[in-house]
Amino acid sequence: MTRRYLLTVSYDGTAYCGWQAQKNGPSVQETLETALSRLLGSFTRVTGASRTDAGVHALGQRAHFDADTGIPAEKLPFALNTMLPPDVRVTAGLLVPDTLHARFSVMEKTYTYRIHNAPHASALYRSLTAHVPVALDVSLMHEAAQALVGTHDFAAYCAAGGSAKTTVRTIREIAVRREGDRVTLTVTGNAFLYNMVRIIAGTLIDVGHGKLPPECMKTALTTLNRLDLGVTAPACGLELTEVRYPEESLRVHNQNA
Amino acid sequence: MTRRYLLTVSYDGTAYCGWQAQKNGPSVQETLETALSRLLGSFTRVTGASRTDAGVHALGQRAHFDADTGIPAEKLPFALNTMLPPDVRVTAGLLVPDTLHARFSVMEKTYTYRIHNAPHASALYRSLTAHVPVALDVSLMHEAAQALVGTHDFAAYCAAGGSAKTTVRTIREIAVRREGDRVTLTVTGNAFLYNMVRIIAGTLIDVGHGKLPPECMKTALTTLNRLDLGVTAPACGLELTEVRYPEESLRVHNQNA
Repeated sequence: MTRRYLLTVSYDGTAYCGWQAQKNGPSVQETLETALSRLLGSFTRVTGASRTDAGVHALGQRAHFDADTGIPAEKLPFALNTMLPPDVRVTAGLLVPDTLHARFSVMEKTYTYRIHNAPHASALYRSLTAHVPVALDVSLMHEAAQALVGTHDFAAYCAAGGSAKTTVRTIREIAVRREGDRVTLTVTGNAFLYNMVRIIAGTLIDVGHGKLPPECMKTALTTLNRLDLGVTAPACGLELTEVRYPEESLRVHNQNA
Repeated sequence: MTRRYLLTVSYDGTAYCGWQAQKNGPSVQETLETALSRLLGSFTRVTGASRTDAGVHALGQRAHFDADTGIPAEKLPFALNTMLPPDVRVTAGLLVPDTLHARFSVMEKTYTYRIHNAPHASALYRSLTAHVPVALDVSLMHEAAQALVGTHDFAAYCAAGGSAKTTVRTIREIAVRREGDRVTLTVTGNAFLYNMVRIIAGTLIDVGHGKLPPECMKTALTTLNRLDLGVTAPACGLELTEVRYPEESLRVHNQNA
């Protein structure tokens, strides 16, 4: 009997052209499909929660697939990890209802953007952080970011090339914190536009060293003008940290084994 | 006029055979010497504080060299970093007395050992952590480690191949902490024997999942028997975090420019 499974996937995006299959390099999706198809003995398509860009990392990407297999869901990570390269790890497997869709059922996502804020780039975390040599005023960044909390038209926070029908999104929580040389932005919302978190990060970096006024973040919610904001921050600083679904959507009712 | 300079160096040890020149691959020392010699126009030898092993990382390695240069010490990192690969960064430069020796003048060093304590290895921090899938009792590890504080004969905590004249060392502080999946050991002492921190880490891992009794750490200080302790933990989890010198040894007196 074919059933639906949901995987939690972590990856270092450095070597990948992104989640989705592209012509210019290996994708995480293909890498996962290759391992899964080998494990299950036939080609198996996976559908991800988020189509992360080239170089973007994930701690908690989610992906669903349909299969008729005797492998218990919780054993899938162990079996898959023996077939995956070390920069992709499956950290959880769950049997879910057929109605759960990794992308369309998403309730909320959390992204983390990491900045190495020091005169010299980090040797150790160079592929997991963006380097900003000028000192950032983190309190100012945190304050400015609060303008984004709530439901707004985020059209200004969207790169050309997005295919969203509406640019209205809800941000529930956003925070900027410093721990020594590391500045971390975390943002949780119901959905995100193309490059939205990297535009938020790039703008906050400009706010943090006085290149843009803190009000620009709020202003852009009215003007809807991309030019009111800063540059798109580099992909390597971004991590898809968590994807959440409504609890009831994950509950499997009376399915026979 | 030839003067002595002290650099602070950070590196991702993954691609290196260690600090010191070896036949089996590029060393951090050679990499730094190549950049420095290019910058200064003649071969310049650097002397490191610590000869870190293959795969071991550094946040704050120190190295001295002698040169007659017009480049101000504080500009050296900027100049050198343009010539170094991204996995090696010079983060500080200091003019020091000729009597300061990067290795022999060391007062204290701090090492950090990082463990990813989760069922599956980390995709993101795979080269900066050791993976331990079984759940570790961090309080027990922290308690057991306290036996090492003070001045002891650490002969049991030393791999064969070390060349130290005495195996007596002083540990000032040792701590094991957990933050989610990450378990971190930090240890500060006046000097360390060959593989000492990795043997401490490996033993604490065994203590943390009940394979060795916590008392073994103390017992080994008396028996001086390597076999009373656990395996040497993998190099990739280890970082040389900080090297400190006596303040007065760094003070330059009345040197003419």
